[in-house]
Amino acid sequence: MPHQTSPVRVQMTDAAGQPEPTPELESLYRTFEEQLLVPLWTEIGELMPSQPRSKALPHRWRWKDLLAAAEQAGELVPLGRGGERRAMALANPGLDGRPFATPTLWAAVQYLNPGEDAPVHRHSQHAFRFVVEGEGVWTTVNGDPVAMRRGDFLPQAGWNWHGHHNQSDRPMAWIDGLDIPFQHYTEATFFEFGPDAAGTREAPERSRSERLWAHPGLRPLTHLGPTPATPLLAYRWEHTDHALTEQLTLEADGHAVTVEPGHAAVRYTNPTTGGDVLPTLRAEFHRLAPHTETAARRETGSSVFQVFDGQGHLTVGASSWTVGRGDLFAVPSWHSLTLSTETGMDLFRFTDAPVFERLDLHRSRQEGART
Amino acid sequence: MPHQTSPVRVQMTDAAGQPEPTPELESLYRTFEEQLLVPLWTEIGELMPSQPRSKALPHRWRWKDLLAAAEQAGELVPLGRGGERRAMALANPGLDGRPFATPTLWAAVQYLNPGEDAPVHRHSQHAFRFVVEGEGVWTTVNGDPVAMRRGDFLPQAGWNWHGHHNQSDRPMAWIDGLDIPFQHYTEATFFEFGPDAAGTREAPERSRSERLWAHPGLRPLTHLGPTPATPLLAYRWEHTDHALTEQLTLEADGHAVTVEPGHAAVRYTNPTTGGDVLPTLRAEFHRLAPHTETAARRETGSSVFQVFDGQGHLTVGASSWTVGRGDLFAVPSWHSLTLSTETGMDLFRFTDAPVFERLDLHRSRQEGART
Amino acid sequence: MPHQTSPVRVQMTDAAGQPEPTPELESLYRTFEEQLLVPLWTEIGELMPSQPRSKALPHRWRWKDLLAAAEQAGELVPLGRGGERRAMALANPGLDGRPFATPTLWAAVQYLNPGEDAPVHRHSQHAFRFVVEGEGVWTTVNGDPVAMRRGDFLPQAGWNWHGHHNQSDRPMAWIDGLDIPFQHYTEATFFEFGPDAAGTREAPERSRSERLWAHPGLRPLTHLGPTPATPLLAYRWEHTDHALTEQLTLEADGHAVTVEPGHAAVRYTNPTTGGDVLPTLRAEFHRLAPHTETAARRETGSSVFQVFDGQGHLTVGASSWTVGRGDLFAVPSWHSLTLSTETGMDLFRFTDAPVFERLDLHRSRQEGART
Amino acid sequence: MPHQTSPVRVQMTDAAGQPEPTPELESLYRTFEEQLLVPLWTEIGELMPSQPRSKALPHRWRWKDLLAAAEQAGELVPLGRGGERRAMALANPGLDGRPFATPTLWAAVQYLNPGEDAPVHRHSQHAFRFVVEGEGVWTTVNGDPVAMRRGDFLPQAGWNWHGHHNQSDRPMAWIDGLDIPFQHYTEATFFEFGPDAAGTREAPERSRSERLWAHPGLRPLTHLGPTPATPLLAYRWEHTDHALTEQLTLEADGHAVTVEPGHAAVRYTNPTTGGDVLPTLRAEFHRLAPHTETAARRETGSSVFQVFDGQGHLTVGASSWTVGRGDLFAVPSWHSLTLSTETGMDLFRFTDAPVFERLDLHRSRQEGART
Repeated sequence: MPHQTSPVRVQMTDAAGQPEPTPELESLYRTFEEQLLVPLWTEIGELMPSQPRSKALPHRWRWKDLLAAAEQAGELVPLGRGGERRAMALANPGLDGRPFATPTLWAAVQYLNPGEDAPVHRHSQHAFRFVVEGEGVWTTVNGDPVAMRRGDFLPQAGWNWHGHHNQSDRPMAWIDGLDIPFQHYTEATFFEFGPDAAGTREAPERSRSERLWAHPGLRPLTHLGPTPATPLLAYRWEHTDHALTEQLTLEADGHAVTVEPGHAAVRYTNPTTGGDVLPTLRAEFHRLAPHTETAARRETGSSVFQVFDGQGHLTVGASSWTVGRGDLFAVPSWHSLTLSTETGMDLFRFTDAPVFERLDLHRSRQEGART
Repeated sequence: MPHQTSPVRVQMTDAAGQPEPTPELESLYRTFEEQLLVPLWTEIGELMPSQPRSKALPHRWRWKDLLAAAEQAGELVPLGRGGERRAMALANPGLDGRPFATPTLWAAVQYLNPGEDAPVHRHSQHAFRFVVEGEGVWTTVNGDPVAMRRGDFLPQAGWNWHGHHNQSDRPMAWIDGLDIPFQHYTEATFFEFGPDAAGTREAPERSRSERLWAHPGLRPLTHLGPTPATPLLAYRWEHTDHALTEQLTLEADGHAVTVEPGHAAVRYTNPTTGGDVLPTLRAEFHRLAPHTETAARRETGSSVFQVFDGQGHLTVGASSWTVGRGDLFAVPSWHSLTLSTETGMDLFRFTDAPVFERLDLHRSRQEGART
Repeated sequence: MPHQTSPVRVQMTDAAGQPEPTPELESLYRTFEEQLLVPLWTEIGELMPSQPRSKALPHRWRWKDLLAAAEQAGELVPLGRGGERRAMALANPGLDGRPFATPTLWAAVQYLNPGEDAPVHRHSQHAFRFVVEGEGVWTTVNGDPVAMRRGDFLPQAGWNWHGHHNQSDRPMAWIDGLDIPFQHYTEATFFEFGPDAAGTREAPERSRSERLWAHPGLRPLTHLGPTPATPLLAYRWEHTDHALTEQLTLEADGHAVTVEPGHAAVRYTNPTTGGDVLPTLRAEFHRLAPHTETAARRETGSSVFQVFDGQGHLTVGASSWTVGRGDLFAVPSWHSLTLSTETGMDLFRFTDAPVFERLDLHRSRQEGART
Repeated sequence: MPHQTSPVRVQMTDAAGQPEPTPELESLYRTFEEQLLVPLWTEIGELMPSQPRSKALPHRWRWKDLLAAAEQAGELVPLGRGGERRAMALANPGLDGRPFATPTLWAAVQYLNPGEDAPVHRHSQHAFRFVVEGEGVWTTVNGDPVAMRRGDFLPQAGWNWHGHHNQSDRPMAWIDGLDIPFQHYTEATFFEFGPDAAGTREAPERSRSERLWAHPGLRPLTHLGPTPATPLLAYRWEHTDHALTEQLTLEADGHAVTVEPGHAAVRYTNPTTGGDVLPTLRAEFHRLAPHTETAARRETGSSVFQVFDGQGHLTVGASSWTVGRGDLFAVPSWHSLTLSTETGMDLFRFTDAPVFERLDLHRSRQEGART
């Protein structure tokens, strides 16, 4: 292969730690290029830093801007087979304009007009929806219609048929979270089209999955054994809210049940294992009582947060923002995060932590509570 | 060791498959006795049958008889340190008068007079309570008071401090299930006395364990990772009842979610693993709709059932009984069980199945639905 | 049921902690007997002691006595269908003359004359053979003939067809270990007869199982995934001996690789899991260098040891013995064990530890090295 | 953020499935760019294809070319702190000149002159060495010197100190495999410098890790419980060769122990779990008997092979090559692979399969044996 067509470029420099530039070295580097070889010694600084150096940047997206853009898309962009979803993905400013909130995580606003159908398909990517406001859409997963309402977390494991239908006379917007970037990178992606319409116009209050599974500590005898992803398709706000309220009440009574003073939190779990809801995605909900500041924490892997209610302040690495209802922000790998609020703040969070934990790559560090 | 003190007795017989009785053989058998040796060939028939031959017998205990005996004990037997509990255990008629419902399971009626305390202790045995009627007692586990009410299942893993206090002005009876026979046999038993009184007079509607854990699919961030036994101390009747009602409603709508037609069932699980509530004990609740007859099923290991509501008929091996509210019955290993009801019947069940499953000794067989 | 036929006997006493003897109590106790009920308060002392109180006793069996009895049996007891095996089981003096070395473990001497066949059968019980001396027998497991030689450990999981054939012109004796008492107690036992002869006269040096599996750290691509029991049918003495020699050599070079000074030990493992060879049985080999005394250790569950070579002294609870080549001894649950030797001693050991570990019932305590 | 600085570019087109190009749409797309949003409908084709569409290409690297380049590097590139290793990585022609053999796998030739030291460091990346020819280098892992010889596979889990030293008077080359691209992508990377020299000049035949662990089915009592990565630092050629020879001999005797006729294979495993040697990397060795052609197989995830001996032919997707001793080739995700040989061929293989299996993303398909 003539070197002019090789994608490899090896640069001779007089940087410290590099071999002395000579014509012989130059010639060797050309040979490397021809042979499709890259020396470790010119790359090690970037590839093997002393600690994770994320390409992604901390960033905040304002909900009002996202919603305004989504509403315009609702007018201009028809929904149908091929485009599949009216979803607009957060593009991390450090990731070359790709629609990736972090290197591994996809986060998008999806928007559905009254009466519209998002057509049925299935894909290997794991997904969930989280609803910051509104209602009226049912997502139908393998024929089971699941109502979507403010505060609900709706996981949906890979390779299940699903479509959405807006049964109401008002548009609805929500956020989708997926492992699209991770499956894109690892080249694990499968996709199939299903029927164009969501398949059912049923609009029950509770999905069949909830009727079978949303009973604390109980499982049907017909579904024993672990499943890789949760069989429960809706985690309702009333349960999440109740659990968080109880944690703060117990804390007030002197019981050490919170993450730290004023900071209640729950993890959404797969009732067949007690572990994460999805094989590649973790989801949690955090509540900060008024006048709470969290300790600075960092971990390998990345997160996306959405403020569900209230407002507060956040610091990620060297960046700081004020955030309120609906605002989203990305926390890159090994970036320190601190959250604070004067008036109280509720936050939904999702991360790629299962990837790290299952592969024994997880590390975390807490830098001592600042309060 | 002179043979007259040896516990070993080896009998010479002219049974088929046995060596020919001779004076030399007689002499050898005396040597075996002296040496504390037992030949396999005289014992193999009993030790290695073609399928499990349970020493236990199927048996039914009538609730009204148990309750009457318990009430008398309430008058005659004081409660205190040493005796520890006013509990009367079911003694399987095949098990030599031992207080064992089956070879591995303990099932007892416990009775507490108004204002009485069952003193605090802890033991390695795993335990639970199930309430067929009444209310007013709080069981306090590691300082967390847990109300006991009709239909509640209250597991309590080994080595936790616990006592009971009757806060009401009426006596209360319930059943206790433990793995006492199994831990007795395996010689795994530890026990410690705690304070004489249950320690707290608090009588909250919901225990702290429920406030932390009884939220479907949610777990507190302060309690991640699996625990051998469930951290949830009360599985309330309203949830169990609701789950069973939903299964039958879904079945009526054409969804295959029941064990068999008209037979709904849930297993109580440890939310940190999705597996059994206790390492040695499984607990389930079964509901038979009117006009239901179950298929005949058998499995290795044994069960105890209590009828919670309604009435019906049961066949265990060659025995049959009619049963109603509160009645208990034991199903020995590898005995076929069929249940039927004309008017509907609710049953609580517990078994030693985790022992068999964790040790790869579990086998089961279903003999084709009879309906 | 008239009380005269009830197996239950409840005794009224004036012991401390018991209710005051009165005619009313006497009458209540008769009612208990009629109802097949046993009060906890009369039994708690025996059933729930403060720590395990084993019914089994420490005991030592001398190899020369066992072998002499086995040789006599070789002359007087023919081998065939029905009796199945010429095996003589160790009967713990505390266990009512039953052929149980401990409550859970079976240990027997098996003896096969030249040319004899032990007929093929299979059973749910897990088994192994360990050879303290001799050779010439092949055990055939599912058609795979496995040579038996001094020092070899030969596990054989439940429900595999197996028979033995003595291919040599000399008798051979070895020990069998099984979980017969445990499966008898839990009533989990299945058994089937196979062909009368061991099925093959092949006598290869290495079994097929070894040719597939006895390569350190390697597994065939056709056998991935965990299996409940080891697929390797022979753990050869040369490997065991080598591993122990290396541990002591490494220790001499200053590396902390032994259990304690002078005490090397290996566990036999299932190469598909890294865990115990059999679901209910653990097997290990221990080597004590000359002038070694072990720390006193106790654990829940019981063990049987066989001295493989050398001689020494042992203390189990309050009993002490001198032991030499071939001698066996039983260590009951929660009995402290100390081993010592002046000239060095090799010991094979098997236990019921997997039962305890898988059921979260395992506890152990070490009482500080005595040396 | 003014849109001219946004990395996002959203293109309006008249492609099928895209919204109709209008000035309003153009304006909306500019808004997306400003808001750092990317629509799914313009990206779905690339991100969610019907099956994995690997960016990587099948490619073969010739060993003689790699070795020639490495020898030149041995003359021109000094080895020391900063550059760390004289390693030249295979750069897949589809991956933009990055030093990645596949999207997840690093494969490099490393070269050490007589007497040279590769300085001690540690990193979170998991690594191994495989030796296609030569000997004389010891790699020292946490102070344990491990000889490297032809055919040996030498895994080394992340975060262990390691350096290499060439003890001989001849240069030595081998291949390194790591998960550098995967940890780079997931941003999980930690790195620390250690001492400049490998720390020991000991050159034992067997490492301490082998003396403790390379005994089939045996583990030291001081190292119980699973570890994420293998504690065995060397898998010697003699064992691998022996295992493969046995498989083909057993096959010749009529036993179905090979992957397919003439195709023997072993997987290197972690003896503490029976699973893969490293959390992110799988390694195997394959032997094709003369006149063997494998079935076409494809799976999610990618592999790198090195021919260890013999020669043959390979087809990956639409590409074909003839390969001989030392040649390497990359197989991208979901590319069909067929291997054939007339004279026999031995191949080492490593893959990212543990990532896929642990995350439930693994799929495979076999297209029917061609022979």
